[in-house]
Amino acid sequence: MPNYKIVLSYDGTNFAGWQRQLGKRTIQGEVEAALAKLAGQAVGLVGAGRTDAGVHALGQTANFKASFRLDEAALLKALNANLPETIRVSGLERVGPGFHARRDAVSKTYAYRIWTAPQVSPFDVRYVLHWPHRLDLRRMRAAAALFVREADFSGFSSNTERRPVRRVTRSEIRRKGAEIVYTIEAGGFLRHMVRTIVGTLLEVGRGRLGLEAIERIFAEGKRTLGSPTAPAKGLCLIRVGY
Amino acid sequence: MPNYKIVLSYDGTNFAGWQRQLGKRTIQGEVEAALAKLAGQAVGLVGAGRTDAGVHALGQTANFKASFRLDEAALLKALNANLPETIRVSGLERVGPGFHARRDAVSKTYAYRIWTAPQVSPFDVRYVLHWPHRLDLRRMRAAAALFVREADFSGFSSNTERRPVRRVTRSEIRRKGAEIVYTIEAGGFLRHMVRTIVGTLLEVGRGRLGLEAIERIFAEGKRTLGSPTAPAKGLCLIRVGY
Repeated sequence: MPNYKIVLSYDGTNFAGWQRQLGKRTIQGEVEAALAKLAGQAVGLVGAGRTDAGVHALGQTANFKASFRLDEAALLKALNANLPETIRVSGLERVGPGFHARRDAVSKTYAYRIWTAPQVSPFDVRYVLHWPHRLDLRRMRAAAALFVREADFSGFSSNTERRPVRRVTRSEIRRKGAEIVYTIEAGGFLRHMVRTIVGTLLEVGRGRLGLEAIERIFAEGKRTLGSPTAPAKGLCLIRVGY
Repeated sequence: MPNYKIVLSYDGTNFAGWQRQLGKRTIQGEVEAALAKLAGQAVGLVGAGRTDAGVHALGQTANFKASFRLDEAALLKALNANLPETIRVSGLERVGPGFHARRDAVSKTYAYRIWTAPQVSPFDVRYVLHWPHRLDLRRMRAAAALFVREADFSGFSSNTERRPVRRVTRSEIRRKGAEIVYTIEAGGFLRHMVRTIVGTLLEVGRGRLGLEAIERIFAEGKRTLGSPTAPAKGLCLIRVGY
């Protein structure tokens, strides 16, 4: 059967995350339902990664194998017509039979938005962490740079995994007015890894954690210092590289 | 009792409009409830205008008379703490006892967003009218200019009013990539006036209505030609002038 690659954007606010779950609205569940309707049979969707409940995406990527009577342009249109408005397929193409959205992904880029003004606009409130407190941006930048490495990231994850080594190639903070955007790119991520790193950076920014603490967490490989996991809603999966 | 002026922004998506209604979530209802909680008694809120269900605001303005033990900065903070995240008070100040948000308003500015690309982002879908069809922008601009006048606007309203003359001082179309923004400023508006003008401009843009039709509607003062009222969600009250 033909193999298709799709690129998805979604507002994760009202979904229980990516992964199909019985009795819950999830991104995978909604897209599989739309595909099944168009294909006339069940279609399994492979996502590049499983975003948590409340996490958004601009460039999530997935693949599925199915046969349709529609060409690519018509299929993209039909898919969007059968999806909730808060999930959009922005790209669709036929790919070789071997393409696998998760296994073939070589990088993922996430952005985390922090809003530092006293009030959050009603139009942004679903997409940012509101942090109307002082933050030492210089220290946060220095801390962010420490995450660019190939290492065991267990100390910045919610699970213990058998293969906890990840390679982070970009970890940087930009400021645009009252908004701070943290961008991180890696070959892959452990569970809650971006949100835990953001939580750690916020602890650094407010002066509760020194830069040396980050090295200590890497060395110990455990979340002993309890840096909080930042809320899901500030996080967005920007891009998956192949 | 002291008189306060507030400036409000809200995402109108999940509200039944501005005006208080029993058993429905409305902007006025939510703000009055928050005020009553802080004042320890019922507080009446006067809005500059009544936005319809689904219409948004960046600069709605209102006033209320009540006594609080808080200064302005603390009151603004307390109000926001007692409001849903989709309603924000962005400004609050004490004004003279005679200030009346509706009667003293000398101008209102609305913007209407039209999105012309094939797909709408999940992050914009609540705030734009999706119109993925060809539009003749030159003709729409010419048509928009015809609304700058002092005239009886009954032909562009859903109600008949005793005093249907309004003075429009700005009516213009700007394009930013796939987005068309229509901005209109007037001393005041009739019911559904902006949305009906937008509906008319879209009819012009798609070639169904000539410019002369607009003069005819003004002359006849009735909605005989049935230009559709554009959906609420694209509309935003930008500013109220005093």
